[in-house]
Amino acid sequence: MRKKKIIAAVSIGLAAAVSVFAQDEWTTEKALDMIWLFLGASLVFVMQTGFALLETGLTRAKNAANIVMKNLMDFCIGAIIYWAIGWGLMYGADAFGGLIGASDFFKNVMDDPIYYRDWFFQVVFAATSATIVSGAMAERTQFKSYLIYTCFISAAIYPISGHWIWGGGWLAKLGFHDFAGSTVVHSVGGWAALMGALVLGPRTGKYTKGPDGKTLIKAFPGHSMPLAMTGVFLLWFGWYGFNGASTLSGSSPDIARVCVTTTLAAASGAIGALSTSWIWFKKPDVSMSMNGALAGLVSITAPCSIVSPAASIAIGLIGGIIVVLSVEFIDKVLKIDDPVGASSVHLSCGIWGTLAVGIWGNVEGTAIGLLHGGGAAQLGIQALGIVSVGAWAALTSLILFLLIKACVGLRVSQKEELQGLDINEHKADAYAGFQIFSNM
Amino acid sequence: MRKKKIIAAVSIGLAAAVSVFAQDEWTTEKALDMIWLFLGASLVFVMQTGFALLETGLTRAKNAANIVMKNLMDFCIGAIIYWAIGWGLMYGADAFGGLIGASDFFKNVMDDPIYYRDWFFQVVFAATSATIVSGAMAERTQFKSYLIYTCFISAAIYPISGHWIWGGGWLAKLGFHDFAGSTVVHSVGGWAALMGALVLGPRTGKYTKGPDGKTLIKAFPGHSMPLAMTGVFLLWFGWYGFNGASTLSGSSPDIARVCVTTTLAAASGAIGALSTSWIWFKKPDVSMSMNGALAGLVSITAPCSIVSPAASIAIGLIGGIIVVLSVEFIDKVLKIDDPVGASSVHLSCGIWGTLAVGIWGNVEGTAIGLLHGGGAAQLGIQALGIVSVGAWAALTSLILFLLIKACVGLRVSQKEELQGLDINEHKADAYAGFQIFSNM
Amino acid sequence: MRKKKIIAAVSIGLAAAVSVFAQDEWTTEKALDMIWLFLGASLVFVMQTGFALLETGLTRAKNAANIVMKNLMDFCIGAIIYWAIGWGLMYGADAFGGLIGASDFFKNVMDDPIYYRDWFFQVVFAATSATIVSGAMAERTQFKSYLIYTCFISAAIYPISGHWIWGGGWLAKLGFHDFAGSTVVHSVGGWAALMGALVLGPRTGKYTKGPDGKTLIKAFPGHSMPLAMTGVFLLWFGWYGFNGASTLSGSSPDIARVCVTTTLAAASGAIGALSTSWIWFKKPDVSMSMNGALAGLVSITAPCSIVSPAASIAIGLIGGIIVVLSVEFIDKVLKIDDPVGASSVHLSCGIWGTLAVGIWGNVEGTAIGLLHGGGAAQLGIQALGIVSVGAWAALTSLILFLLIKACVGLRVSQKEELQGLDINEHKADAYAGFQIFSNM
Repeated sequence: MRKKKIIAAVSIGLAAAVSVFAQDEWTTEKALDMIWLFLGASLVFVMQTGFALLETGLTRAKNAANIVMKNLMDFCIGAIIYWAIGWGLMYGADAFGGLIGASDFFKNVMDDPIYYRDWFFQVVFAATSATIVSGAMAERTQFKSYLIYTCFISAAIYPISGHWIWGGGWLAKLGFHDFAGSTVVHSVGGWAALMGALVLGPRTGKYTKGPDGKTLIKAFPGHSMPLAMTGVFLLWFGWYGFNGASTLSGSSPDIARVCVTTTLAAASGAIGALSTSWIWFKKPDVSMSMNGALAGLVSITAPCSIVSPAASIAIGLIGGIIVVLSVEFIDKVLKIDDPVGASSVHLSCGIWGTLAVGIWGNVEGTAIGLLHGGGAAQLGIQALGIVSVGAWAALTSLILFLLIKACVGLRVSQKEELQGLDINEHKADAYAGFQIFSNM
Repeated sequence: MRKKKIIAAVSIGLAAAVSVFAQDEWTTEKALDMIWLFLGASLVFVMQTGFALLETGLTRAKNAANIVMKNLMDFCIGAIIYWAIGWGLMYGADAFGGLIGASDFFKNVMDDPIYYRDWFFQVVFAATSATIVSGAMAERTQFKSYLIYTCFISAAIYPISGHWIWGGGWLAKLGFHDFAGSTVVHSVGGWAALMGALVLGPRTGKYTKGPDGKTLIKAFPGHSMPLAMTGVFLLWFGWYGFNGASTLSGSSPDIARVCVTTTLAAASGAIGALSTSWIWFKKPDVSMSMNGALAGLVSITAPCSIVSPAASIAIGLIGGIIVVLSVEFIDKVLKIDDPVGASSVHLSCGIWGTLAVGIWGNVEGTAIGLLHGGGAAQLGIQALGIVSVGAWAALTSLILFLLIKACVGLRVSQKEELQGLDINEHKADAYAGFQIFSNM
Repeated sequence: MRKKKIIAAVSIGLAAAVSVFAQDEWTTEKALDMIWLFLGASLVFVMQTGFALLETGLTRAKNAANIVMKNLMDFCIGAIIYWAIGWGLMYGADAFGGLIGASDFFKNVMDDPIYYRDWFFQVVFAATSATIVSGAMAERTQFKSYLIYTCFISAAIYPISGHWIWGGGWLAKLGFHDFAGSTVVHSVGGWAALMGALVLGPRTGKYTKGPDGKTLIKAFPGHSMPLAMTGVFLLWFGWYGFNGASTLSGSSPDIARVCVTTTLAAASGAIGALSTSWIWFKKPDVSMSMNGALAGLVSITAPCSIVSPAASIAIGLIGGIIVVLSVEFIDKVLKIDDPVGASSVHLSCGIWGTLAVGIWGNVEGTAIGLLHGGGAAQLGIQALGIVSVGAWAALTSLILFLLIKACVGLRVSQKEELQGLDINEHKADAYAGFQIFSNM
């Protein structure tokens, strides 16, 4: 399946136990893997709920129904497309020297439990990448245009760079290491999020000129911190499947290390962002702390299987600091309006986590990190992967959004935006009966 | 345990591995089954949260505390009753030629891990059937009357028809196939929901006469789309346990096929309902799309283990179209007021999914579906099951609701209904401090 | 690992199966345990979401962001501290004759899957104990002071008494039985909660003098019953990991008994509290019913593996009655203001569940309960554990809160409290855009 295993399988015992069975029989080891990947995939599916709640909570009440609809439908459309096209491009037989997969489109077999199992585990990763974007493009995107975007990221953008790394493509052959997807999933989604927000432009009223000619930056506070925090907790919960089950083997002893490093990095990420915001803004900031936990999780996703507890604390803590700096930089300097900070969490920390592999990577027999005498080779390979996947994802999604903008339009009218997308795009009211201030 | 397995066990390997152990020893296979059914039951339990949030979100704020209370208490009362009575009627020793089970009431053993395991897995299915009804009867039912109903569905209505199919009763002997409960669970709950809504009558103001004598139909929009969508995601998540663990065996290779078909049917169900509503109502409808995902899930529940990915997409898509038509038909033509569309999702799509077994059912060696040359025999058996279980569930729940109405009353007073059930039934305010429009 | 197993391992079959492997190989049994404890720990992690939602829902909207922040950060800080210090005190090599563990601080190994696995399973229990307190201290505590408290409970208070029972310390040697933590986790958290609420004092306006000199007791209704109920459901879901995985072995046949007793006790706990409130207050009370389900869960936590279904119903039912009496007693008689009833749920029912071991404990070969002829010896040992752990937790947390109060302050100013903690502690608005009554 998808990843080159750096760590040699320790499970001599299991191997011996199953050796009495022929290759194609359903051994205990296969049964364990099946349960394990089922569990992992189900947990990663929960992350869809997490994203929906996080993005809803951090944006305004008048767009809440639209956001949850985008989260539902990008999974639904993405799943069908990933079955039809994406899977074949990502895990089909290699073509053009590691550039794409090219078989198994519309795969409609009945008796292939390994394919079924792997597709189920992979589709939820594809959906994660797609759904990262909805937050960055929140509160001003046409619903139908968003659905068009979601087709293309699930069909081609995500699967093709995914093939390079997890499908046995050219980056895999070079030894690029991304255990659970800091680059494969998060950076790709993060680049698309940043390009989407750039092409769309900021929400009306976000950046205005003051009487003195200086730019005034308005914050639009989210409408439900409890929902957003529930989203963070559910994302964290789902991440145990995202990282843990990326061992791909239910009989791997590495499962536990992954869980410990994931927990510690998420925790230190939140602490890093809380502290940074407390010092900088003089108050322990709620949305920064939430994004800090997610920053820790994104940062540890690539190296989680090959770093120590102390290293995971460092990686998470730095991720938590990075996310605050990145949010401020993208908002205040680049003036790109990403309402939930998706590009900072998934792109900036995705890059950081991928680099961390080359710094702290260290497991018996494979000390690839700088700090463990592994030299700069791995770090170079990691950087090459970041740049090449970044170029691919940024360029293709930029072109895609420009094309959508030119052909069908990307943005709702200003009047619709000010009234809210719920009523204009869905004839819906997310909170019927509640008194909500009309200018929010 | 509960279901006749159509598919022969492939696990020759496992069988060989465990053959060295005596029958009553705790083998690896039993350990895998235990973990598997624990996992499945826990996921199905999450569906209680899903139902609570879906029903709450799709109804009005003044009844929100009442709805979550009904969801909590129907599980609690149902669990005790299902332990005392329901289990024995469903899985006790067969009596009267396949009509009921009749042993194991109030089963209070200490050392029977298989019984414990199976009861835990089954009680969450029983609770699902019971809780479907609370949405259809929302916003006007007396709390105590609802609790009386929940006793009877958990004690007898659900277990007796369940015995016919999963308990080895007469429909099982005929070869009726319902893998995870499109009929056993969803149709039974759906019939009770429809009968409950019928006996209760519509909410005050739902159907009124206009000045020209024509019926005016009022929509009461739900008060929280984010909560409702969270409910959908959690139901979908739980469904992986509902369908996946219905293999009953943790070492079954069929687990993965079930997950793939479940995912694709849910996705295409949402797409089907979204498209239908977009064409018909000119806007992509939020609650229809949510019900569409659930429609896909209900539809695939019976056939999920024996259909191909492409078939599952078709089954889900049609389920998603059916749910929109059914909601409109029940609301506009039958004029039965089902506030959340529970009868459309669970009854209409439960019937559809049960029939789909006879159309697409196809697995190596058991091509029972029409489209695979299986002839009409299986379709006939499926129809027989639908009709007989439907007659049982509809009649008994109709009589039950009429009896409750006659003896203790079923509905709150109109004044209480207009004020809201929270304050009148529970002295509670679901959203203390929030300004909520009083006429909602 | 952590608990003395009363029940002899039945798994002769498994033992035989793995006997061909050397001790240090990764056997099937170890793989099953790994998956099992991963699953358990992930479910217990969900309880953090449950606590956050329950506590948020049962308090006022103006403090909602503050509460979810406390819930996030107590886990994050607690996890790091428990890695650095807590683990070593709880599970390090025994020192001072069973009083503390004293090794494995800042444990930074790379290749110790058993340590990783056990730490991951234990850190979520430690976090549960810590987070119980946030509800009792809600709506008036300084954020930074709460973070200081969380350091100490995770570093020392919880781990040291935990060592006595689960770390092989002196209570374990005496035969004290607490399967999953009625005392170890819940009572310890409950005592800290009670002491915290006591030292803080009641919320402004909670207890006032009427014109006739009598004390007037004001209820501050929670702001979201749907969120609170979602919390209850998620806590219940997580409890299947809390209790179920406390078998510590994925190949234990006891898993299923634990699930059945946990389910029945939670159900009967809700029924007990619903009935008590209905009779006493004349209405089926929402928050009492929610706390009743949790009361049943806390009560069954210690005895869940060694009682019958009927006994679990009795234990839960009594727990549900106790929680109502305890809430009224603490509020009306002791006049300690615990906004969510945390001390009643976790302390009063934690004590009850621990005693229940000595009343109903009964498994083949180990009838330790009074009602099964076990004599009063076990009951005496249980009482000794309750008193000694209680004295430890109450005294240390009392001193801790007094010290924090003296050194940095524990409580926000009255003006800040009345305005709300969100705006004053975090410059945040939990529900931006919603009209919320200012006096709530």
